[in-house]
Amino acid sequence: MNTEIKKLEMVSQRLEGLGDGIFSVAMTILAIELTMPVVKGDNWADFSEALHESWHGLLCYVISFIVLGIMWFGHRMMFEYIGKTSRYFIFLGILFYLVVCLVPFSTRILANNTLQWFSIFMYGINLSLCNLTLYAQWTYGLRRRSLLHSHVPPEVKKEANFLFLVSPIVYGIAIVISFFSPKISIGIFVVTPILYLLPNKVDKYLP
Amino acid sequence: MNTEIKKLEMVSQRLEGLGDGIFSVAMTILAIELTMPVVKGDNWADFSEALHESWHGLLCYVISFIVLGIMWFGHRMMFEYIGKTSRYFIFLGILFYLVVCLVPFSTRILANNTLQWFSIFMYGINLSLCNLTLYAQWTYGLRRRSLLHSHVPPEVKKEANFLFLVSPIVYGIAIVISFFSPKISIGIFVVTPILYLLPNKVDKYLP
Amino acid sequence: MNTEIKKLEMVSQRLEGLGDGIFSVAMTILAIELTMPVVKGDNWADFSEALHESWHGLLCYVISFIVLGIMWFGHRMMFEYIGKTSRYFIFLGILFYLVVCLVPFSTRILANNTLQWFSIFMYGINLSLCNLTLYAQWTYGLRRRSLLHSHVPPEVKKEANFLFLVSPIVYGIAIVISFFSPKISIGIFVVTPILYLLPNKVDKYLP
Amino acid sequence: MNTEIKKLEMVSQRLEGLGDGIFSVAMTILAIELTMPVVKGDNWADFSEALHESWHGLLCYVISFIVLGIMWFGHRMMFEYIGKTSRYFIFLGILFYLVVCLVPFSTRILANNTLQWFSIFMYGINLSLCNLTLYAQWTYGLRRRSLLHSHVPPEVKKEANFLFLVSPIVYGIAIVISFFSPKISIGIFVVTPILYLLPNKVDKYLP
Repeated sequence: MNTEIKKLEMVSQRLEGLGDGIFSVAMTILAIELTMPVVKGDNWADFSEALHESWHGLLCYVISFIVLGIMWFGHRMMFEYIGKTSRYFIFLGILFYLVVCLVPFSTRILANNTLQWFSIFMYGINLSLCNLTLYAQWTYGLRRRSLLHSHVPPEVKKEANFLFLVSPIVYGIAIVISFFSPKISIGIFVVTPILYLLPNKVDKYLP
Repeated sequence: MNTEIKKLEMVSQRLEGLGDGIFSVAMTILAIELTMPVVKGDNWADFSEALHESWHGLLCYVISFIVLGIMWFGHRMMFEYIGKTSRYFIFLGILFYLVVCLVPFSTRILANNTLQWFSIFMYGINLSLCNLTLYAQWTYGLRRRSLLHSHVPPEVKKEANFLFLVSPIVYGIAIVISFFSPKISIGIFVVTPILYLLPNKVDKYLP
Repeated sequence: MNTEIKKLEMVSQRLEGLGDGIFSVAMTILAIELTMPVVKGDNWADFSEALHESWHGLLCYVISFIVLGIMWFGHRMMFEYIGKTSRYFIFLGILFYLVVCLVPFSTRILANNTLQWFSIFMYGINLSLCNLTLYAQWTYGLRRRSLLHSHVPPEVKKEANFLFLVSPIVYGIAIVISFFSPKISIGIFVVTPILYLLPNKVDKYLP
Repeated sequence: MNTEIKKLEMVSQRLEGLGDGIFSVAMTILAIELTMPVVKGDNWADFSEALHESWHGLLCYVISFIVLGIMWFGHRMMFEYIGKTSRYFIFLGILFYLVVCLVPFSTRILANNTLQWFSIFMYGINLSLCNLTLYAQWTYGLRRRSLLHSHVPPEVKKEANFLFLVSPIVYGIAIVISFFSPKISIGIFVVTPILYLLPNKVDKYLP
């Protein structure tokens, strides 16, 4: 009889552990892929010239690291509400990790071709896919009551929707602008993370 | 006297942690090994040509990532039933991780020689060994009652056996076919993961 | 009404997990970047010549590994007092990890140009930033009472301040000296970790 | 007054987490460093020739992976008895991790120069240092009563001493033999792990 089936726990702890591992490796790998500055001579001018050439790489590193940090925060917040996992919830998680692991790759493309439309295109698509897959996982989790371990206030749902979806829209705009002025697009990538650093409506639920 | 021996706990948590670490590194490394697309010019045609050349690598990345994700899921499910570890259980786990760590390597071989029988051969053997070593660990764990922390229903055992053993058989067929038509073999690698995404008999035990 | 808001737990465990992941990857990567010794012949003289050429790399590896180990210890100690996280506490943590992930990069620069002022400059700045960002996170955590899960004795605060701030000062001195005698600067990098290995006032609170 | 000092918990969980991270990265990195087999033609002869050339690398991979697996097991067993950490216990742990992280490096040297005395020398020294530093950490932990969370039976102490110290002795012999017959030394590296797979006196304390 169906009533005799003893459900498994399937707590989310290990999926979170896998995610923390993936984020920590992806973040550290961002730094491995930095090209070594070549300082030709021994004076300050040679040094600042070498720094100038590494500048693009370092900027892309900082942007991507902070964006991954923000995504990690969103991923971490999600598990404040969701405490159990089902098969499809885990598979949506794997999909999220699949695009997260591509961030060091698209960052390297951007670092090597910073002001080209195609690298901005690939970078923007990659970051957007990260947000959208995490959003899919979150939305799926909210619908499966059995996965939740605390009630999600409507205000949090609304703010989360905004925070998940604003980036893909902004990155879409950055991609369109890149055909005319790649510098403005890069500026948009620099400024967007600040949106997530401002106080928001979720803060009052945090310690 | 033997009766005075106080058994150690040896809970499986740390073996799971080691596994999560290995999976997260192997998954992220899959993406490092992607070759950078080289876009010669500045127009859409050059970009799509570059994408076309990176196509094989990206396809292999996606297949391997999803296959590793499915294996991680199987590995995670196993510990829903097995809660303690013995020396041989851990050594069988190390054997499983030994072949999992080779997946980025055989994926790179496949990406570089996608339609060659020998790369399909090595890739198929590697994925099959992952399934078979995990199956060995699972079977060993089931036999040692002292390791189990919840009863495994016969239905789950049967379904698990099917899911562990169907892949090596299918991959074996793909290897044989590769001598005649490598494209069909690659098609089999693409389609096989879908088997694990369909609803199955274990689902009703999950939250 | 505000009184109805149920605060989330946001325990620090996952931030610690992310940090442990980042430290373990950064530490292991230090060793990947060692250049392979090339032993030309088959006798002891050729071998010791090859070792002699790898010497700088190995020394930088050992220094950086121990410095990262000490920082990990500081990071670990912090969470003995701080048990919950807020959004800004996490963002300060991300900033700390951002500079920690650069350590393998600046170590490689130092290994390749051990006695050059600019590599000592970049290495010293990087290590100092690690200490200063961790200090910022610690200071922020102490001020937010809701994050603390045990009282921090004034003696510990004072000793922590000293241990956080002494390195940036010493590294600043090493940078200045490097313009005159890079060897002394390297000596300072070798000796500084010993400061953290001596008995100190925090010890009596440890088991 | 001294009697008012409230000791911190300093449970070993996070040090274990750092260790699991380091082992999982080191193990996965062993596989990245495998050189790609180059299959010149399309027939079985070319394939087996390519495999033949990759043979040394794969053998060294398997040996090192299993040795790291055994060390991980020893490290994991240690924390079955030791549940808290002090500053020096952690620093001894960092020292152990420092030499563990070098294993992929010395494995690569051995893979590239399998039958040379100097690579056998470096590999043997590295593996011995892993055992000896872990032994130092274990011995230190046993002496500090406040770190133990379960009694260590004398039989376990004795068996542990044997298992920690037998490898460095055997590896020392392999190093000496390598000056006359490197093949026998490699044979010793292959056979030694089997010692740790045989039943031993610790088994009866395990589940």
